[in-house]
Amino acid sequence: MACRQGGLCREVVGVTRRPETAQQALALQVVHRATTQLAEALDGADIIVLATPVRNIIRQIHQLGKMNLPRCLLLDLGSTKQDIVRAMEILPPHVEPLGSHPMCGKELSGLTAADPALYRGALWVLVPLARTSDAAVSLASDLISAVGARPLLMEAARHDQLVAAISHLPYVLAVALVLAVARLGETDAMVWQLAASGFRDTSRLAGSDVDMMLDILMTNRAAIGEMLACASSQLCHLADLIARGDEESLRALLTLARALRTSPPSTA
Amino acid sequence: MACRQGGLCREVVGVTRRPETAQQALALQVVHRATTQLAEALDGADIIVLATPVRNIIRQIHQLGKMNLPRCLLLDLGSTKQDIVRAMEILPPHVEPLGSHPMCGKELSGLTAADPALYRGALWVLVPLARTSDAAVSLASDLISAVGARPLLMEAARHDQLVAAISHLPYVLAVALVLAVARLGETDAMVWQLAASGFRDTSRLAGSDVDMMLDILMTNRAAIGEMLACASSQLCHLADLIARGDEESLRALLTLARALRTSPPSTA
Repeated sequence: MACRQGGLCREVVGVTRRPETAQQALALQVVHRATTQLAEALDGADIIVLATPVRNIIRQIHQLGKMNLPRCLLLDLGSTKQDIVRAMEILPPHVEPLGSHPMCGKELSGLTAADPALYRGALWVLVPLARTSDAAVSLASDLISAVGARPLLMEAARHDQLVAAISHLPYVLAVALVLAVARLGETDAMVWQLAASGFRDTSRLAGSDVDMMLDILMTNRAAIGEMLACASSQLCHLADLIARGDEESLRALLTLARALRTSPPSTA
Repeated sequence: MACRQGGLCREVVGVTRRPETAQQALALQVVHRATTQLAEALDGADIIVLATPVRNIIRQIHQLGKMNLPRCLLLDLGSTKQDIVRAMEILPPHVEPLGSHPMCGKELSGLTAADPALYRGALWVLVPLARTSDAAVSLASDLISAVGARPLLMEAARHDQLVAAISHLPYVLAVALVLAVARLGETDAMVWQLAASGFRDTSRLAGSDVDMMLDILMTNRAAIGEMLACASSQLCHLADLIARGDEESLRALLTLARALRTSPPSTA
């Protein structure tokens, strides 16, 4: 949508599973042309962008590997990177594979939630394979800059560890919060009516698309496991300080968290 | 500010600790008159509103109990209710005490964050004491409705249990999240730069005023302890399902959480 409406590409072709979605993409001016036939869209493509849940991207890579691919850049927008760039190794040599992940998003999914301004000001992680040429990285960087984001090169493992902390952990915490509130809701349904902005913000990610999140959780289990253990241990420590009424230690931690949240350390 | 700018009271008098704040309140049209002298403000007051962190409200109630109070309604806006309404028992019989808690707020504090539209559409819990007259509850309800909120009568213990779930638990989860991210930040500071909207929303409450939150945690320890235990157990269960790759059970829980977050059960 950002490419189409920004006039960044001669032609943007959308490939969807269902014909209704193809129609909708055309109507919403997300693409110039839409089809349910992958082969038809690939013909003459300079850049292929895979933008589905992670494990579907991996399936698509295997599917593409068996097709007659043009000389092109193949970019994915998946939320985890290790499994995807590993799958990309199977692509033929005339295809330039490049893993990527725009660090922005919404808990809403579907075309009606599409927003061409979503990428503005966001960081966009690029994960080149050993075989990926500088020219391919440069082309992707130009496209990313053109939609208003800032490209950032990174290794797949580091990316997956970082997003486990700042994206997947918050999601699981949001789910745990909703399930804990639901437990109280079984005996006092008023809890849902009383829930105000604090609950709504902290639990927002629990409204995320389940297929997308399940693919993320299943392709980043080790890093997410580490972050969950770390957060559980922090939570346990905080609960202990509250139970014991240790105000001094509690004040120190709350003050630290507030300072980090209000002015995050800058990365020099 | 909502009373002053909505023309709801003949005169709104602000009492602040520091003279600078009194000046600021006047300049921002939060009040008609401001003073640092409590006795001066009490003279002829029909309604006294205590709006500070919880334990400060309790100190103020004890202080007021020793002063020459007019015949008035004494309303507090504290975030927990059991300790406050218990303290209110000491007030002389010609004072009508009424605990209350508007179910809205910001993580920002101070007069510059004041917003007279904050209460619009919010629920506002009222916790009368056994001695509180219907007329006093009715006067408070009128004031609450006039600033755009909806009064809701409730017992103190129930209020404290409900806010432990929807307000205090989200705060502690947000703090645990920030501290867990900080742990990773010790070895990879890039985590702060990469943090996008998901992290920002889930961690927003960690930016709350520490004095306010410490008073809340210390005056609602039992209920918060229960909710923390419940959330920890949910978190542990989710971590286990992720580690074991139990997609079926995980999908069921994520789908339930999404449904509850997207369309909370209505309270009939």
